Order: sequence, then C-alpha cells, then structure tokens
Amino acid sequence: MCEANAYLIQNGKQELIMESVDKVEPEENGLRLVDIYGEQRFVKARIHALSLVDHKILLRY
Amino acid sequence: MCEANAYLIQNGKQELIMESVDKVEPEENGLRLVDIYGEQRFVKARIHALSLVDHKILLRY
Repeated sequence: MCEANAYLIQNGKQELIMESVDKVEPEENGLRLVDIYGEQRFVKARIHALSLVDHKILLRY
Repeated sequence: MCEANAYLIQNGKQELIMESVDKVEPEENGLRLVDIYGEQRFVKARIHALSLVDHKILLRY
C-alpha cells in the first residue's frame, strides 16, 4: 500500500495529524484527507509539499 | 517504492504528464514535480486530488 502520513508544519516542526492517508482533495478553504479505512478529516491547511517515497504529505496554514 | 503518476485533467480526460513522481512542491504559479530519478518538471497547474493507493496525482489548470 502506498498511503502516506500527513504532517502539519507549525513553528518549524512537523506534527503528525493523520496516518495512512489515501486521498487528498483540495476544497474551498482547506483539504479533505481520507485514510485507507475511509475515515475523513477536513483541515484548514494547504499542501506545502509531497514526498511520496518518504510517505510524507506536508501541510501548512 | 511509492511514487505516483501525475495526470493533467483536460476536457474530462486524464493525460499522463509524468511517471514515477516522488516530490510535488507548490510554487508561485504552478507545481514543481520531481521524479524518482531526480528529473524535474514545472507545470502551470494545481492539485485537483491525490489518490495515493492508486498511485495517482491528478492536476488541473
């Protein structure tokens, strides 16, 4: 499986906010994250960078 | 390896524009894509959605 973990960058640190993310869908004011179990979370953040080989989705406000 | 393929959505179709993408970095007017071999490509597009289990990065203008 090639899911990734989503981290929110705050104060120069990466805070893990969701594991095993499958889908990321930008919406009006943020991002919808859906993990491989179908759990959803909406975050008011934007994509800072993806590093897929490292399984990382980096988000920022 | 958990790289993905990047597709640009145009006229309702998904056009493959880069394979084996590792990194995606939003910039001022578009996205920088870097594949697992270090090849870079800048595209004037935004992220429409990610579907990592399907190894898909969907982009749109």
